[in-house]
Amino acid sequence: MTKRKKIFLEEHEMPRQWYNIAADLPGTLNPPLGPDGNPIGPEMLAPVFPMNLIEQEVSSERWIDIPEKVLEMLAIWRPAPLVRAYALEEALGTPARIYYKNESVSPAGSHKPNTAVAQAYYNKEFGIKKLTTETGAGQWGSALSFACSLLGLECKVFMVRVSFDQKPFRKMMMEAWGGTCIPSPSDQTQAGRNVLAEFPDTPGSLGIAISEAIEAAVTDPTGETRYSLGSVLNHVMLHQTIIGLEAKKQLKKINEKLPDVIIGCAGGGSNFAGISFPFIQDKINGAEMEIIAVEPASCPTLTKAPFAYDHGDIAKMTPLLAMNSLGHGFIPPPIHAGGLRYHGMSPLVSHAVKEGLVTPQALHQLECYEAGVIFARSEGIIPAPETNHAIASVIREANKAKEEGKEKVILFNFSGHGLMDLVGYDKYFNGELKDHNLSPEDYEKFTAVLKNHPSPIL
Amino acid sequence: MTKRKKIFLEEHEMPRQWYNIAADLPGTLNPPLGPDGNPIGPEMLAPVFPMNLIEQEVSSERWIDIPEKVLEMLAIWRPAPLVRAYALEEALGTPARIYYKNESVSPAGSHKPNTAVAQAYYNKEFGIKKLTTETGAGQWGSALSFACSLLGLECKVFMVRVSFDQKPFRKMMMEAWGGTCIPSPSDQTQAGRNVLAEFPDTPGSLGIAISEAIEAAVTDPTGETRYSLGSVLNHVMLHQTIIGLEAKKQLKKINEKLPDVIIGCAGGGSNFAGISFPFIQDKINGAEMEIIAVEPASCPTLTKAPFAYDHGDIAKMTPLLAMNSLGHGFIPPPIHAGGLRYHGMSPLVSHAVKEGLVTPQALHQLECYEAGVIFARSEGIIPAPETNHAIASVIREANKAKEEGKEKVILFNFSGHGLMDLVGYDKYFNGELKDHNLSPEDYEKFTAVLKNHPSPIL
Repeated sequence: MTKRKKIFLEEHEMPRQWYNIAADLPGTLNPPLGPDGNPIGPEMLAPVFPMNLIEQEVSSERWIDIPEKVLEMLAIWRPAPLVRAYALEEALGTPARIYYKNESVSPAGSHKPNTAVAQAYYNKEFGIKKLTTETGAGQWGSALSFACSLLGLECKVFMVRVSFDQKPFRKMMMEAWGGTCIPSPSDQTQAGRNVLAEFPDTPGSLGIAISEAIEAAVTDPTGETRYSLGSVLNHVMLHQTIIGLEAKKQLKKINEKLPDVIIGCAGGGSNFAGISFPFIQDKINGAEMEIIAVEPASCPTLTKAPFAYDHGDIAKMTPLLAMNSLGHGFIPPPIHAGGLRYHGMSPLVSHAVKEGLVTPQALHQLECYEAGVIFARSEGIIPAPETNHAIASVIREANKAKEEGKEKVILFNFSGHGLMDLVGYDKYFNGELKDHNLSPEDYEKFTAVLKNHPSPIL
Repeated sequence: MTKRKKIFLEEHEMPRQWYNIAADLPGTLNPPLGPDGNPIGPEMLAPVFPMNLIEQEVSSERWIDIPEKVLEMLAIWRPAPLVRAYALEEALGTPARIYYKNESVSPAGSHKPNTAVAQAYYNKEFGIKKLTTETGAGQWGSALSFACSLLGLECKVFMVRVSFDQKPFRKMMMEAWGGTCIPSPSDQTQAGRNVLAEFPDTPGSLGIAISEAIEAAVTDPTGETRYSLGSVLNHVMLHQTIIGLEAKKQLKKINEKLPDVIIGCAGGGSNFAGISFPFIQDKINGAEMEIIAVEPASCPTLTKAPFAYDHGDIAKMTPLLAMNSLGHGFIPPPIHAGGLRYHGMSPLVSHAVKEGLVTPQALHQLECYEAGVIFARSEGIIPAPETNHAIASVIREANKAKEEGKEKVILFNFSGHGLMDLVGYDKYFNGELKDHNLSPEDYEKFTAVLKNHPSPIL
């Protein structure tokens, strides 16, 4: 055992502060706008989020303390191991040194609990008794149920009906943690009843589920319910930076240099932000590194969509956010990486791309599944379909390093395992999956809404 | 963060030798017998297992070196964390200090890969190209597929048809690692064809699947196929002792005393042996501790069955092993802890019980699910239904410590997570599960075969 595969940190070495990239990003951040096109104030968000999280959402402080109780909950699975992928390197015959941050070790199997425990904590501190949220593939709903169970909060998850029917195990997982999971649209909200009246057989959508979850929160007469979102927003990115902060400590522990390349997949942007933001700080300060956000070619938010003001949901219940967006009505093809099928993108990630700090990349799903299988059969862990996008990009970079004969250091975020998503692999092996491109017609159709907003395309 | 939840070992602190309890057990171990009632020699096992594993099976050396390559594969997830269950202690209000060894962090989600990587390695060293095995609930088949993928061995798994149909995700998991999984009985073996001819609609059984897997190994004309078993045998227990050896180092690292109570669930005995055998050595040498093997009341091998010679499979293809057995024809009720539904028990574990070193305990499944839910909602990890048996026993001991006002140290093996077994929880919440007892009539009926063997009940 001359090779050391895993680099652990002890619990006392866990970062004590999150990194807020808003303090360092060049250029001016565009504020969220209300329906009238004017910037919204914190008080307008108060029915939806607790004020302590709203403060984080708009904060420009560089470092924000992680509360002791949050650290305690994170310690259930953190610090997460940093792993040197020797077997993958060998399989590829690359001179690159490949490291991955293994976020699949959380009880819910992905990076999502990093922000779930923080959000549940701040809500509880604020006197909130119950959280509502939506979930598509089920990762976020599971993570929030997990977090609420640790703090004794109620949790209600509106799950897109088609996923609810196809993935019964995700519901069971939420229930094991005491959460409630109902298919959306439901008859529990006006938004849901309206949709059901018109389309009784609808498969549902993330947009409808968000509308129901927000309505369920803001209409609770006790005032003790709030809504929780698992990606996109600034405070979610903030909570995920513990990933990159730990990785930086771990690389230092083995005297490894800063990575030449950092890679994460990007749907709403949270796992990508988690691994990359603490290193983008170094890049802003002069360090040379390539930082790649990988998205599906079928939902090319960062590579194709304009940077514009748009709503986060189809029902336009959220404020207008400045971000890359394919239009809030965009319906991505049914690829098997549910977590990457989102029309928009974190405003902070979008801004970092606009400023040239991050290189976006769009990959097709067949290449990604092929990469996932190579990883599973060398490193031993079956990746989530979303994570396969990062791995496919890593393999491209490792092969490039081989061609160039360079000893590059590549770091990527292993955002989740695939044990709850094996159907995608089955279809891949059976040749039932295909690649999808965004057609120029769809692009025109869906992005047209961006021109109708009170604030023009930026 | 004054509380330290997880105790890690670095990779260089991983044990370099397995502990062979056969060297220390008091009394005389009864050798396996052939069909004629005489002890079998190693050569009789040669068509089934490679000679290097047969040597381990019969070894009386106390310490056996772990090969470097096996350590490298184990390092994918080992050393496994030892975790102080603060939140569970608080939920129970117990003065006991509860620790668990988290074996769910392996890529297959349980302790099974500990022996899978070792067995795959020794087979490859011996020139074997392909392994066959059977699987019931799917844990072992997944683990062996995982191990074979790391070493480039072929892996064929005969999965009990009813599980194959009910748990399609287990098959997909094996295939992601390149294994082949077919429902048993199949038309690929004479044993399978015989059963199908008579009972075309049979749900299959572990006994039939074992027969098919052994036949597929021994009839391969190239001679390059062997059979692999995931529990019961001595070399399997040996490979699992890394669990307890690590736990001992971890307790020492925080200056904790030897545990007062050690608990593991027991089906074939391997995860129980893994956590307990290294501590039983201390008990043999005079240390005082209670070591509890927990089994389901519906399959009470250690608490009710006689210690006798019996076959490991229904088709009587295995040698006669000296063990606690309910009779090789025993069909346990359909409880949701598939890994604990076995008529026999590891001969080494059975012997340790006979010598008074281990206290067996039989629990009902409703109490176990209740315990699992308490654990999931405090410690945050959803346990496998098998592991719930250990947790239920821990809760009993923790409550006893509370009544007695004693600061006991309790150690248990968290043998696997329940993410692939959520249906059991769903049925539990819906009130669809019930407790099962072994009826006196069934006991008489199934144990009758034990009197027909060439060697009498011991």
